[in-house]
Amino acid sequence: MSKLYVVGLGPGSVNGMTGAAKAALEQADVIVGYTVYIDLIRAQVPDKPVLTTPMRQEVERVRLALKTAAEGRTVAMVCSGDAGVYGMSGLCEELSSEYPGVEIQTIPGVSAVLSGAAILGAPLMHDFAVISLSDLLTPWEKIEKRLLAAAEADFVICLYNPASHKRRDHLKRACELVLRFASPKTVCGIARNIGRDGEQTQVLTLEELKDTEVDMFSTVFIGNSETRIINGKMVTPRGYIHE
Amino acid sequence: MSKLYVVGLGPGSVNGMTGAAKAALEQADVIVGYTVYIDLIRAQVPDKPVLTTPMRQEVERVRLALKTAAEGRTVAMVCSGDAGVYGMSGLCEELSSEYPGVEIQTIPGVSAVLSGAAILGAPLMHDFAVISLSDLLTPWEKIEKRLLAAAEADFVICLYNPASHKRRDHLKRACELVLRFASPKTVCGIARNIGRDGEQTQVLTLEELKDTEVDMFSTVFIGNSETRIINGKMVTPRGYIHE
Repeated sequence: MSKLYVVGLGPGSVNGMTGAAKAALEQADVIVGYTVYIDLIRAQVPDKPVLTTPMRQEVERVRLALKTAAEGRTVAMVCSGDAGVYGMSGLCEELSSEYPGVEIQTIPGVSAVLSGAAILGAPLMHDFAVISLSDLLTPWEKIEKRLLAAAEADFVICLYNPASHKRRDHLKRACELVLRFASPKTVCGIARNIGRDGEQTQVLTLEELKDTEVDMFSTVFIGNSETRIINGKMVTPRGYIHE
Repeated sequence: MSKLYVVGLGPGSVNGMTGAAKAALEQADVIVGYTVYIDLIRAQVPDKPVLTTPMRQEVERVRLALKTAAEGRTVAMVCSGDAGVYGMSGLCEELSSEYPGVEIQTIPGVSAVLSGAAILGAPLMHDFAVISLSDLLTPWEKIEKRLLAAAEADFVICLYNPASHKRRDHLKRACELVLRFASPKTVCGIARNIGRDGEQTQVLTLEELKDTEVDMFSTVFIGNSETRIINGKMVTPRGYIHE
């Protein structure tokens, strides 16, 4: 039985990796990943062979990893954040039946919903929904339905892929949908370049967020009806104080 | 300006900690936390003074941490998983105004929604909602509303605190609500003792989950309409294969 580790590297820097992720890289004979992520960990594995594929070629990359493992080598496939959140671990599991004898183990990492929340303050003290605004693999109608449901039920909402190359108005449209149920004064936050050079946060209202342009390095948070600004940070009270 | 690090330790073992979490423990003069979590990291900080408080005394523990930091010492307050998810970082921010001069920094960790997903397979490849079934700080009506909204909009659902000491039927009631919109055959999963001795997973249908008793060391996942079982694992396809 050969092994494919699907490793989430956490936010930008090596500091965000878990011990388990480091151990998987050390155990691997070969590292597979998109070039940008390989660069992040190159210093950790200076002597390991690396197989890279261009961006967007997810199926090819996963097949390459599975094929290499099926040949008897231990492989670590690396992803930013957590490979289990809109990541490659699902595709690895889906294609694994074509490569019997390869055992897949996902090593979880700190995804942007957690690392972004940490630099913004404490927005996730209450129930939350994570929604990707990318309609590359999901019909926009389904995304709309989820945004409306999350807003109506007063979830804190975290938006992945808030900006796309093709459509520039996804975030604006998402805010308009949420505004059907939420106050324009709802506290929101943007976390950008989390854990990397140029890390930035911005706390603003939902009304302001609607007219704000974000880039693909941003993760967006929309508070629930109780989220407040405390010392410039975005905080959703949990209610302990009033117990 | 003195510093309070609010540190998420990730799942059970030290292996689940990030480099940033380890660094915060090393920089701290004093460690504050609930006894069980201190035990997990004792070997990492053999010589540091430790302040513990009993379980449930969240407000007292946070005040102790803030007061110690206000006296000029660097403090690391430790939590399991991620302190930013139903954790202590919100309360620290809320009470911080009473202790001016203390800077709070949350160090995110791998929360059970991520670590549980990793051992179950890949359930979070699509939009998901995280809901706590504890009605200690949230009215049950609000929890019900969120369960119904998440089910109707076909979110993958992750349930924290699926079992309580007082009420044993929370999970059953949650499943009944989700069943109003989801098929009884919906793929579900239970992750128990994640990253610790006795780690266990179980994959089952929503119908079966409804009549299953879980304990407080369990995190429960309810798939969306597309979640499947692949090689015994719980996998929500993302759609790359059919692009």
